[in-house]
Amino acid sequence: MSVTYAQGFEAAGIPAGISVHQGKKDLALVVNRGPLHHAAGVFTSNRFCAAPVQWSRKVISDGSLQAVVINSGGANACTGEAGYRQSEQTASAAAAQLGAEPAEVAVASTGLIGELLPIDHVLQGVDHAFAQLADTPQAGEDASYAIMTTDTKPKTVTLDGSGYHIGGMVKGSGMIAPQLATMICVITTDAALSSEQADEALRQATGTSFDRIDVDGCMSTNDTVLLLVSGASGVEPDMEEFSALLSQACASLARQIVGDGEGSSHDINVTVKGATSEQAALSCARAIAGANLLKCAIAGNDPNWGRVVSSLGTVPQSVAPYDPNNVTVNINGVMVCDGGKPGQSRSLVTMEEREVDITVDLHEGNAQGTIWTDDLTHDYVQINSEYES
Amino acid sequence: MSVTYAQGFEAAGIPAGISVHQGKKDLALVVNRGPLHHAAGVFTSNRFCAAPVQWSRKVISDGSLQAVVINSGGANACTGEAGYRQSEQTASAAAAQLGAEPAEVAVASTGLIGELLPIDHVLQGVDHAFAQLADTPQAGEDASYAIMTTDTKPKTVTLDGSGYHIGGMVKGSGMIAPQLATMICVITTDAALSSEQADEALRQATGTSFDRIDVDGCMSTNDTVLLLVSGASGVEPDMEEFSALLSQACASLARQIVGDGEGSSHDINVTVKGATSEQAALSCARAIAGANLLKCAIAGNDPNWGRVVSSLGTVPQSVAPYDPNNVTVNINGVMVCDGGKPGQSRSLVTMEEREVDITVDLHEGNAQGTIWTDDLTHDYVQINSEYES
Repeated sequence: MSVTYAQGFEAAGIPAGISVHQGKKDLALVVNRGPLHHAAGVFTSNRFCAAPVQWSRKVISDGSLQAVVINSGGANACTGEAGYRQSEQTASAAAAQLGAEPAEVAVASTGLIGELLPIDHVLQGVDHAFAQLADTPQAGEDASYAIMTTDTKPKTVTLDGSGYHIGGMVKGSGMIAPQLATMICVITTDAALSSEQADEALRQATGTSFDRIDVDGCMSTNDTVLLLVSGASGVEPDMEEFSALLSQACASLARQIVGDGEGSSHDINVTVKGATSEQAALSCARAIAGANLLKCAIAGNDPNWGRVVSSLGTVPQSVAPYDPNNVTVNINGVMVCDGGKPGQSRSLVTMEEREVDITVDLHEGNAQGTIWTDDLTHDYVQINSEYES
Repeated sequence: MSVTYAQGFEAAGIPAGISVHQGKKDLALVVNRGPLHHAAGVFTSNRFCAAPVQWSRKVISDGSLQAVVINSGGANACTGEAGYRQSEQTASAAAAQLGAEPAEVAVASTGLIGELLPIDHVLQGVDHAFAQLADTPQAGEDASYAIMTTDTKPKTVTLDGSGYHIGGMVKGSGMIAPQLATMICVITTDAALSSEQADEALRQATGTSFDRIDVDGCMSTNDTVLLLVSGASGVEPDMEEFSALLSQACASLARQIVGDGEGSSHDINVTVKGATSEQAALSCARAIAGANLLKCAIAGNDPNWGRVVSSLGTVPQSVAPYDPNNVTVNINGVMVCDGGKPGQSRSLVTMEEREVDITVDLHEGNAQGTIWTDDLTHDYVQINSEYES
């Protein structure tokens, strides 16, 4: 379903011969049939941002887009001017089909860094995708398959507002990092929003979702989140409701990324509460969620709270004030560390479920924050010592 | 040899029944017979610092120590006041043997966080170690074995100055992090230094050695580096020579830690040059050295420069000014990335050797810095999903 759930959108996902995996769907197309063509985007803050990010950041600056072309099988990152021309050519091919300007088409790419795309395959793929365009659930699903790389399953979301709809798809499994996580995400809505409303809602939604997941601490060169607005429902939404729904959609997609984190066997929710500010809570939660030693322990079903506090202890006092002697650590509901000392026996903690909740209370204030991450397994090492990305 | 290489020092390493591994040497004793008893120490900056760190930081503040007791088999971290009393008791037992004050004895511990030590075994072990004390090479070697945990081999160094000697031992394999790396290190010298000279030389030496290694980004609660000064050579050294030698000793021990990093199959030297300042160079090198994806690629003998630049790209412009389009990346002498784009073919890079050199040139200034790290292997995950530390 995904991006075709909202009215006014068509999609396609086809095998274009870009990926090394023969026959894999590797080119997705999403077209906004209007009546509105408003759009907003959020991109990686990596200084080595890929050509498609440079292109899309430029063309979305006027708040308008009619289509997005996404390919897996190659990131088109660190490819210089030749790479940038490839992104421009891709957008131009789609624009020709639409009878629109190239600046009305965003592009996104994912795959190996440092190699140009097989551009002939991409351009033929764009034409082929236009021939397959449909507003059906199947078309949305095809698109969500075409953007996958090491993802083991497509990740989509659909939500209903008061008279309008939101649909979305995302890819992401490794190179998922603090700040904007590494992924490509397209969200569509038939609500009637201005570009400014779309931009504000998208920034707010990504700030509390994609910005709070961390699979491996590695920020990508290609992160892209796009919100496309068709207005086809004719409904001007209550912006509070719309923002809440968009945040819910982004949170769902973000959690699905963590749930499909490369090689992972546990989803880990790290909540830090009792902090003096949300920022302090998030800094502590990030330090804990990023600790390889803890992530290995969780992979071994070991509720090793020593690795929680030793990571927490690296956050400077100036960033997060607290007294180590007041800190408590709960793992799956068992208070294994009480006031900086051993609490209940760690043998009481059950770790059979995929979900692991780690809650740290700093007992210093009233703010809290959560970061979602994965454990670190043999399979993560396997995937990333073999896969070139 | 290690700590007994310099005159005036005796050592012992014995099995005291602290470790779960029956018969493993797990208690080390180093005694400074003088005539001087000067000392300096550098400790973890982790806010959850262990009881022995709290004790040793306090007693070394007057610049004087006669002995150090080190145990493996338990970190005595996050153990509250009871843990602090155990460190005090351990120091007192050694002080009684010496006829000195407890404040003349430092202690250090390594092992599982969050459990008290089997204190009876520790105290009996201290007495037993005093009975075994000797200034022989074997005694120094025994001590270097007794401090090992997941280390696969003892790590020692000996150096000759102009009429004086430096000896040292270190343990460390996992939980090795930016800033002061996680380890316990004792260095001895028979040069005649004041406490102030010892302190200054030690800070300078650790700043360019232990502070620049990173096995897994995890900072420990128990890091301790001690320099003990007997003055037994009677030689007041040229401080420039002494500092250089001490830095050389620390660098050797630091490199040995990386060489014995948990489960590692490659030592990785990340050098960033052409930076506007040493600090900028080190920030970039740390970002690259800490990237799990890159460390997995190296484990798979894949010279994946895309993962070098994507990590480099996370360092803010305000921290390290450079233009991505000017950056070059050399891996084992092959310039795989030239001006932010593909350079020579990555197939030219040979990765058979244990040592891997990654050199990034920012082409922005004249400063440089190196961080030493390991690759990320199946064995690291294996060790850390099973070992409780």
